[in-house]
Amino acid sequence: MSSSGEYMNGHVHLEESDMDESDGKLFLTEAFNIIMEEILNKGRDLKEKVCEWKDPDQLRSLLDLELRDHGECHEKLLQRVRDVAKYSVKTCHPRFFNQLFAGVDYHALTGRLITETLNTSQYTYEVAPVFVLMEEEVISKLRSLVGWSEGDGIFCPGGSMSNMYAINVARYWAFPQVKTKGLWAAPRMAIFTSQQSHYSVKKGAAFLGIGTENVFIVQVDESGSMIPEDLEAKIVQAKSQDAVPFFVNATAGTTVQGAFDPLKRIADICERNGMWMHVDAAWGGSVLFSKKHRHLVAGIERANSVTWNPHKMLLTGLQCSVILFRDTTNLLMHCHSAKATYLFQQDKFYDTSLDTGDKSIQCGRKVDCLKLWLMWKAIGASGLSQRVDKAFALTRYLVEEMEKRENFQLVCKGPFVNVCFWFIPPSLKGKENSPDYQERLSKVAPVIKERMMKRGTMMVGYQPMDEHVNFFRMVVVSPQLTTKDMDFFLDEMEKLGKDL
Amino acid sequence: MSSSGEYMNGHVHLEESDMDESDGKLFLTEAFNIIMEEILNKGRDLKEKVCEWKDPDQLRSLLDLELRDHGECHEKLLQRVRDVAKYSVKTCHPRFFNQLFAGVDYHALTGRLITETLNTSQYTYEVAPVFVLMEEEVISKLRSLVGWSEGDGIFCPGGSMSNMYAINVARYWAFPQVKTKGLWAAPRMAIFTSQQSHYSVKKGAAFLGIGTENVFIVQVDESGSMIPEDLEAKIVQAKSQDAVPFFVNATAGTTVQGAFDPLKRIADICERNGMWMHVDAAWGGSVLFSKKHRHLVAGIERANSVTWNPHKMLLTGLQCSVILFRDTTNLLMHCHSAKATYLFQQDKFYDTSLDTGDKSIQCGRKVDCLKLWLMWKAIGASGLSQRVDKAFALTRYLVEEMEKRENFQLVCKGPFVNVCFWFIPPSLKGKENSPDYQERLSKVAPVIKERMMKRGTMMVGYQPMDEHVNFFRMVVVSPQLTTKDMDFFLDEMEKLGKDL
Repeated sequence: MSSSGEYMNGHVHLEESDMDESDGKLFLTEAFNIIMEEILNKGRDLKEKVCEWKDPDQLRSLLDLELRDHGECHEKLLQRVRDVAKYSVKTCHPRFFNQLFAGVDYHALTGRLITETLNTSQYTYEVAPVFVLMEEEVISKLRSLVGWSEGDGIFCPGGSMSNMYAINVARYWAFPQVKTKGLWAAPRMAIFTSQQSHYSVKKGAAFLGIGTENVFIVQVDESGSMIPEDLEAKIVQAKSQDAVPFFVNATAGTTVQGAFDPLKRIADICERNGMWMHVDAAWGGSVLFSKKHRHLVAGIERANSVTWNPHKMLLTGLQCSVILFRDTTNLLMHCHSAKATYLFQQDKFYDTSLDTGDKSIQCGRKVDCLKLWLMWKAIGASGLSQRVDKAFALTRYLVEEMEKRENFQLVCKGPFVNVCFWFIPPSLKGKENSPDYQERLSKVAPVIKERMMKRGTMMVGYQPMDEHVNFFRMVVVSPQLTTKDMDFFLDEMEKLGKDL
Repeated sequence: MSSSGEYMNGHVHLEESDMDESDGKLFLTEAFNIIMEEILNKGRDLKEKVCEWKDPDQLRSLLDLELRDHGECHEKLLQRVRDVAKYSVKTCHPRFFNQLFAGVDYHALTGRLITETLNTSQYTYEVAPVFVLMEEEVISKLRSLVGWSEGDGIFCPGGSMSNMYAINVARYWAFPQVKTKGLWAAPRMAIFTSQQSHYSVKKGAAFLGIGTENVFIVQVDESGSMIPEDLEAKIVQAKSQDAVPFFVNATAGTTVQGAFDPLKRIADICERNGMWMHVDAAWGGSVLFSKKHRHLVAGIERANSVTWNPHKMLLTGLQCSVILFRDTTNLLMHCHSAKATYLFQQDKFYDTSLDTGDKSIQCGRKVDCLKLWLMWKAIGASGLSQRVDKAFALTRYLVEEMEKRENFQLVCKGPFVNVCFWFIPPSLKGKENSPDYQERLSKVAPVIKERMMKRGTMMVGYQPMDEHVNFFRMVVVSPQLTTKDMDFFLDEMEKLGKDL
C-alpha cells in the first residue's frame, strides 16, 4: 500500500476500474444511432447504393486500418464506425442478390444484439440456462418439421461444419473404433455426393482424414438433380476398389441451380446398402415451412441427418445452422464427447444432461438459437411459411418476365428460387452458331459484374458450371422484395449490358 | 394480374414488402433500450445478481419457450426480451469469475453490433471489402507480437477449431497425400500434448480421423507445465509403436492452472525430431501485449503455429479466435482450398488473392475481426498491455490476501491469473490426516457452488484434477475489477462455507 492508502502496482491502479462505464455506454448508444442511420436506414433505401465500391488500395488508405500503440478519441472512433458502415456491402439492401442470404429481419437482429451483449457460451446450463433450454426447443421444432418426433441436433458454425458433423457421426456409427484408433483401424471408406453438391463435402472429407478421392461424384441431370442410377453405379465402383460405401450426401437445394435430389430413391438405395443418408438442406430446408412446396423434400424423414441453415432463406442472420439427427441413442454425444472435468462436472446440483456442450467439437460455442426463436415468436410458423411462399411466387414472376425479354436466356428452369441465366448482349444476338460464341459469352458476365459493382445499384453473382460458360445466378430470398425489385433487376441488367 | 392491377399469388402479395420497416425499427430501438438497462446497467451493478437462478423446469415454464403457428404482439415480444435478459447469466457482472472470459468492453461490443447488423460473410473481397482488409491487418499485428514479420493466419470459430486447423495443416505439411487419399495413404501418426492441455486436442484427433489413442499424453510438473524429458520419452514410445511423431501441442496458459509449457525446450525437441510445434495460447497468448509478462511465452516465435483467443483476456467478446502460422508458402490455402467456382471465380476484376475464404474449412464465416480492431483503435496496444498487467497485479493481490486467511489453501501458486484453491470449512480445519478428509473436502465445492448460484452473488467454477479433489478455479480477467472485488470474493466464500 502506498501512504495514501492506494494499492499500486507499477503504473496500474488496482482500486479502480480501468474503464469509464458512462463513457463506454455513451459511445455504444451513439454508435447504435449510427448503425440505425447508416446501415438500416440508408442500407434499406433504394436511392442508396448497395455498395460504395473502392479498389483494395484505395480502401486501405481511406480506412487507415493500421493498429497502433495509442488509442483514439471518441469523435474519431465514431467516424470509424461511420466509415466501416459506409464502405461495407449492405446485404440488407433490397437489391443485394449476391448470396444465399439477404434482407434483414428486425426481430432476428434484436436477438443477435441481445446474444452479443449477454456474451455467453452455449456449453452448460450453468452459464447459459435460457439458451440451453431454448436450443432444445428450436431444435425440436425444426426436427418435427423434418418429420421426427424424437432425435438429436445441435447448432454449428455454418453449414459446412454441419455437414462435417454428419460425416463424422456417420463414421462413428459405422466404425466406432475410429474415434480412438484412427482411420488405420478401419477399411477405406467411400462418400457419395453429386457433382452439383456443396464443396464442403469434399472439404470435410479432407479435414476428417478420409480424403477427397474417396468422395465419389455422382452425375446429375440437366436440372442439377442427382441421378439415382449413377449413385448405384458409383457404389458398385467404390466396392470394386475395396472402399466401403457408408455415407450419401443428398442435396436439397443445390447452391447454384437450386436443384433437389430425389430423396426417396436415394433413401431406398441407402437402405439396401446399409448406408447413412444425409441431406444437405442448408439452402432448401426452409421449404419445410411451406405446405405448398414441401413436396420438394418428400422423403427427407428417411434421412439419418439433415443440415439446415435458417440464416439463408429465413433471414435470421449469420450464423444459424443446425445439424439434425434421427438417432435416439445419443450417438452425437458418444461420438464427440471428451468429458472434460473442469467444464462438465458430474456432481453438479442440477441435471447435467442439460450440459449439452460436449456434443459439440467446439468448446466455447456462440448462441445461435435466440435470433431464430425470437423471430419465430414474432411471426409464427405461419409467417415463416408465407415468406417461403412469397419467394417462390416472386421467382415465378421473375422467370415469366425474363422470358418476355430477348436479352435473357435461362440456363434451365429450376424448381426453387435460384434463377440461372445468361445475359445475351446485342452483339451476340443471333450468333449462337459462331465458333467464338461461347468464349465471347463467357466474358459478358465479368464485365457486367464490374460495372454493376462500380455503379453500386445491385449485386448478383456469376459462375461457370460444368460445360456452361459464365452465367448469372439470381436468388430471391428476402420477403421484403416486390415485383418492382424484379423489374428493376431486369431493366438494370439491360442497361449494364446494352453496349456489349 | 388481377383486375385491380395487383399481382397476387395465392395468399401472397407480391407488390409489397411483407414487413413493416418502421415497426421493425421501432422494435429494435426499444429492445436496444432494454438491452442497455437490463443487461448493461443492471448486469454491471454490484447490487444486482450475477444470475437469477431457476431450476430447468421452473425456467421452462417461466419463459414459455414453445414455438407456435402464430406470432405475438409488440408488447409481448418486448417482455420476452426482458425475460431473456433477466434469466440469463450476466457475464459482464463484476463478480462473474466462472470462465476464461468476463466483463465487457464497450468498443468491442459496438464492433459486434455493427458486425451483426451488416451481416456479411468473410469469404470474398466482393461481399466483405472492409473486413477482408481488416482481418489482414489484425492478423498481421497479432503475428508480429508472436515475433513473425511474415506468415499467415485466419479467424476460426473458437480455440478448439483453431487447434484443429493447426493439426490439419501440420498433417498436410508432413503428409500432403492425406488431403486426397486419406489417412490410409500415410503411416500411423502421433500427437503429443500435456495432461493439463485443453481437451480440444483429443477432440481434434478424433474428428480428424487420427484417433484419441494416437494422442500421447505428456506428464506435467506440480505447476502444470509440460516436462520436456517426458515428451522425449513419449516420442521414443510412439516410435517404438510404429507411430510417426509429427505434432506437439504446447500450452501457453493451461485451462485450469494457467501453466505455461517450456516453449524453448519443446522447440529444441521439435527441431531435433522434425516435428511441427503448435502453441495453444488461446488463454495465455494475451501476455504478448505485456512487456513485463511476455517472458512467460519466450520461444513462442519458434513455433509453427499459434492459437490465440482475444475473446478471453482481451474482452472482445465471443467469438474471437485466431490461428497464426509462421509458414510463408501458402500452406493453409493449399491444405484447405476446394476452389469452388461459384464463389472464388478467377476472372474477377480485382485481385482475387483477397478472396481469402478458401483458406477456411467453413463457407460462410462470421466477421470476427471488427470487435478487436475497434477496441484496439480505442485504447491502443498500450491500453491492452495495461489491462494484462492489471490482471496479473490483481491476481497477486488476491493470492496475498488469500494466504492471510486460514480458510483458503492454494493448490499451487501459478504464474498467471488462475488461482486454484480449496476452501477449507471450519469442520475440516486441522483434520488433514483423517482418512475421510479428501472425500469430505471433495464435497465442499459443489455445496458452496449451489449456494452461490442460488444467492446469485457471484459465479466461480470448480473441478477435480488428477489426484486433487474438487477445488475452485478463480480467474481474474476483467480490467474493470478492483481490489474491492477481490476482497468481496474472499468474504463471500467464507460466508457461503462458514457452517460446513
